[in-house]
Amino acid sequence: MENFTFYTPTKIYFGKDQIKKLPQSIAPYGKRVLLVYGGGSIKRNGIYDQATTLLTEQGFEITELSGVEPNPRLETVEKGVKLCRDHQIEGIIAIGGGSTIDCSKAISAGVFYEGSPWDFTKDSSLITKTLPLFTVLTMAATGSEMNWGAVITNVETNEKLGIHSVLMIPKVSILDPTYTYTVPTKHTAAGSVDILSHLLENYFSQNKGAYVQDRISEGIMRTVINYAPQALKQPDNYEARANLMWSSTLALNGLTGRGKVGTWSCHPMEHELSAFYDITHGIGLAILTPRWMKYILNEDTVEQMANLAHYVWDIPVNSDNLFETAEKGIQAFYDCFVSWGIPMTLEEVGIPEDNLQLMAEKAVEHSTLATTAYVPLAVKDVRAIYENCLTQGI
Amino acid sequence: MENFTFYTPTKIYFGKDQIKKLPQSIAPYGKRVLLVYGGGSIKRNGIYDQATTLLTEQGFEITELSGVEPNPRLETVEKGVKLCRDHQIEGIIAIGGGSTIDCSKAISAGVFYEGSPWDFTKDSSLITKTLPLFTVLTMAATGSEMNWGAVITNVETNEKLGIHSVLMIPKVSILDPTYTYTVPTKHTAAGSVDILSHLLENYFSQNKGAYVQDRISEGIMRTVINYAPQALKQPDNYEARANLMWSSTLALNGLTGRGKVGTWSCHPMEHELSAFYDITHGIGLAILTPRWMKYILNEDTVEQMANLAHYVWDIPVNSDNLFETAEKGIQAFYDCFVSWGIPMTLEEVGIPEDNLQLMAEKAVEHSTLATTAYVPLAVKDVRAIYENCLTQGI
Repeated sequence: MENFTFYTPTKIYFGKDQIKKLPQSIAPYGKRVLLVYGGGSIKRNGIYDQATTLLTEQGFEITELSGVEPNPRLETVEKGVKLCRDHQIEGIIAIGGGSTIDCSKAISAGVFYEGSPWDFTKDSSLITKTLPLFTVLTMAATGSEMNWGAVITNVETNEKLGIHSVLMIPKVSILDPTYTYTVPTKHTAAGSVDILSHLLENYFSQNKGAYVQDRISEGIMRTVINYAPQALKQPDNYEARANLMWSSTLALNGLTGRGKVGTWSCHPMEHELSAFYDITHGIGLAILTPRWMKYILNEDTVEQMANLAHYVWDIPVNSDNLFETAEKGIQAFYDCFVSWGIPMTLEEVGIPEDNLQLMAEKAVEHSTLATTAYVPLAVKDVRAIYENCLTQGI
Repeated sequence: MENFTFYTPTKIYFGKDQIKKLPQSIAPYGKRVLLVYGGGSIKRNGIYDQATTLLTEQGFEITELSGVEPNPRLETVEKGVKLCRDHQIEGIIAIGGGSTIDCSKAISAGVFYEGSPWDFTKDSSLITKTLPLFTVLTMAATGSEMNWGAVITNVETNEKLGIHSVLMIPKVSILDPTYTYTVPTKHTAAGSVDILSHLLENYFSQNKGAYVQDRISEGIMRTVINYAPQALKQPDNYEARANLMWSSTLALNGLTGRGKVGTWSCHPMEHELSAFYDITHGIGLAILTPRWMKYILNEDTVEQMANLAHYVWDIPVNSDNLFETAEKGIQAFYDCFVSWGIPMTLEEVGIPEDNLQLMAEKAVEHSTLATTAYVPLAVKDVRAIYENCLTQGI
């Protein structure tokens, strides 16, 4: 196990009606708040009314930034920064999923920086101060509600890049599983893949001995695999939504990644797909992940891949042929995503062959794929993995 | 899953040489510190010198409180409170295991309270302010390094009771697994039982649907069961010590307990044993736990007990006879404790039959055993469980 720092100071209020804790959570920081949200679903499902009523009753002055994109854009961050400055905002409330929270994180840091918030993607140390951030989660996926990361898209340059700073960790996050009842099937599935992907990215690392992290990770994976089908079938199944929601937070708050080394693989490959074609992140991950697993399966990786098959899918270990065990596990993930109704080829999500080479180059350029990834991948490898996503099956 | 608040703001520095982060962690709070430790093992193994040198170099003024007992006593807490007041202490550093940290927590709260710190055991709301607490962990067991609880013993009244307040959560905890290399075999075993017990106490709860908590709990149990024998055999096995240490923290920071209902069973029963006979807490838990499991095994509990057997011990589920599966799991815990060299009867730890009735009465009086425990236990039940601990086997 590697040395690590673990720091998750976000206070989580989890469960029904926890939004009542929102005003008292913000009050110590001030009364002028920026309310950030996406395309307006929170107006249709009543969360907007509930939150604004509670806040207005307590005398908060609300400025709004709506229309945050599924892949939140730099220009929206800049718009938010201007609103914060113009209205002397003292705290930011993000109501939404990872996109809204990520956008809010970048705004919270951008307010205190004179240059473009895009600079943070190149150098997070430019973040020296942030506005306090409060989140109300409406989708189980990114884990942004309890972590230090944000991903922002620059449409001018076709870039989708991450920002990391402990100063951006939310102060308080409200996790009410009933708020995810109205998440459409496609996004319930995509969010569940995103959770699994965070776990898998951390699971496959080059160091040994981070045993407890892996056993915890397998437990969370089992949870997602158990409950995603239930949430898809019965969107208002509280138990399913609650387990998916808490899994999403725990999957990316450091619990399964701290103490391990190496960097991620599928996320940087997917970020190019959604930067170029604006596809749903989780769908891109579902398409890529089993192909990536298959591509990197070798003598060095087979043991961990077989662990995964055994501890997550209950596949008996064939000690004489670990590759067989491993391949059954990879197939189980593929079949699982198919059963959740996810389109499993690039063509089905509108990505033609045209830009595979360019996206592969960008994926390597924008990340550490070629150096510190679990199995380092050159441009030709990424291209080959993309190509394997053109046809059904693995 | 029940509504819950999850709040773990402690910054953890985990790994070799992380003690270097101690001075910078305390500096924002002041330079006058109380250094709390136990029987002096930290002087023999060099941790004392390392810490005091680092602190002195940075200009800290150190006041010392040594001799904290394995079951920390009220009088020691009171001594610490006086030292803090006399020396205008600005922060407390606990170097040790759960006893030292618990004692320090009570001191941190007692400083700002005019009455006796024992009052906190009756009413935690009396805690309104605390001194900031920093810990350097030297034993994997109680999880006190990242939580809000402390247990204090009143020798005059033979009482060992808990105090709970989020204000007592440590600011920073240094977790260096090498600091546990010198933990004696007995205490390595006892600490490992304590970790398992925290997980088991949370695992058995009356509500359903806290699935992810249970899967995580099983993963941590697997870790302890895998590594305790390695640490016992080879005390300087870093991987084993690291996994046990991080497991101890995660087992009791809310991760496996939040979202569940009900209160603990084996801990209140054990607290009477150590309050009356000053035995090692983890040893008492090892003796009690399998007997308690066997005693409460019934139609209502058998499913969770069989889950435990399957997911922790890889025991195949016999769907025709879940009791058989469950009993194999209970036996596995018993055999495991025996294999760790733990004495498994009350007689072996010097507890005669004399006070069983009185301790059973006190256990029920001091706790919620009779009301909100997983399976509510009356005095006669607790006595029967104690009696089952008089002979070998379950």
